[in-house]
Amino acid sequence: MPSALVLLAEGAEEMETVITVDVLRRGGVDVTLAGVAGGSPVKCSRNVSIVPDASLDAALSKGPYDAVVCPGGGGGAKILSESEAVGKVLKDQESKGGIVAAVCAGPTALLSHGVGKGKKVTSYPSVGDKMKKGGYTYSEDRVVQDGKIITSRGPGTCFEFALKIVEALAGKEKAASLVDPMLVKL
Amino acid sequence: MPSALVLLAEGAEEMETVITVDVLRRGGVDVTLAGVAGGSPVKCSRNVSIVPDASLDAALSKGPYDAVVCPGGGGGAKILSESEAVGKVLKDQESKGGIVAAVCAGPTALLSHGVGKGKKVTSYPSVGDKMKKGGYTYSEDRVVQDGKIITSRGPGTCFEFALKIVEALAGKEKAASLVDPMLVKL
Ligand SMILES: [Cu+]
Repeated sequence: MPSALVLLAEGAEEMETVITVDVLRRGGVDVTLAGVAGGSPVKCSRNVSIVPDASLDAALSKGPYDAVVCPGGGGGAKILSESEAVGKVLKDQESKGGIVAAVCAGPTALLSHGVGKGKKVTSYPSVGDKMKKGGYTYSEDRVVQDGKIITSRGPGTCFEFALKIVEALAGKEKAASLVDPMLVKL
Repeated sequence: MPSALVLLAEGAEEMETVITVDVLRRGGVDVTLAGVAGGSPVKCSRNVSIVPDASLDAALSKGPYDAVVCPGGGGGAKILSESEAVGKVLKDQESKGGIVAAVCAGPTALLSHGVGKGKKVTSYPSVGDKMKKGGYTYSEDRVVQDGKIITSRGPGTCFEFALKIVEALAGKEKAASLVDPMLVKL
């Protein structure tokens, strides 16, 4: 069973977080939603409070993971960008050749920790310039995969984002099988 | 400020719940996410655990609300369908002329409590026959509004569902203003 670690920090975009976790679980991925600040409930960007499955420390002791995912939300992405522990997770993931995925403002955490430099990525439009200046090749596609780096743009692109991660972890057929039961219009 | 009560029960579809709450809050709606079984974290259909803003009892003491929303998820919708307290909320909402909205399996709670009978509705495809037999006019549109009853089909239709509720509570312009910032493709 493929596995994924989804990083949850205060101010994360709750739709991006929940769509990703839910769709990956529908796709047969063993997902751990990890609280970067510990195991307590995390207040997201629009005040939805989500209980992580484990603290990041506890989650890492169960690793490694086939994919590591950074949701967006300005506040959450800032914490991911500034966290040394998150930096280590992302750099380890890259160096062992695992999938690193980020959506919305999440790609700024890749930038800040020097992960995936030079790769083709997308992001929330407002942080696009920051990504370009940071040395990435920028795309305005709704989801972009370049090797092991998967990026996407915002809440409204998260079904596509999550389906692309499922495809990378469990194959095209598995991903395609999820579309109709969720009534997703691609 | 328009207000909405979103009903949260164990087994609710977490994407449907969170997309609705988040989009309504982006639309300036004062949303209360109410735990039907109390104020403790609620385990949703794909094991995401969400902390409600209040127990249903506490939420009702702050009412009335301009809209009451039933998310789907088979387990959650079953609880909403069988709860006397939820039945009273939905029937009161209908009799005072407020918006009643439901998505996915959520419309079965309307059926079970006799709310919106005869109205044109939609639902998750698998419960469509149940809705037809229960006396509703059935549509396969992604979102349906008939008077004060707004219904929709599943996780992948929830942006449209939530935007329709925002439109009903805060106007077409407000709803339209949310589309691009969320990168929603309609
Ligand atoms: Cu459902």
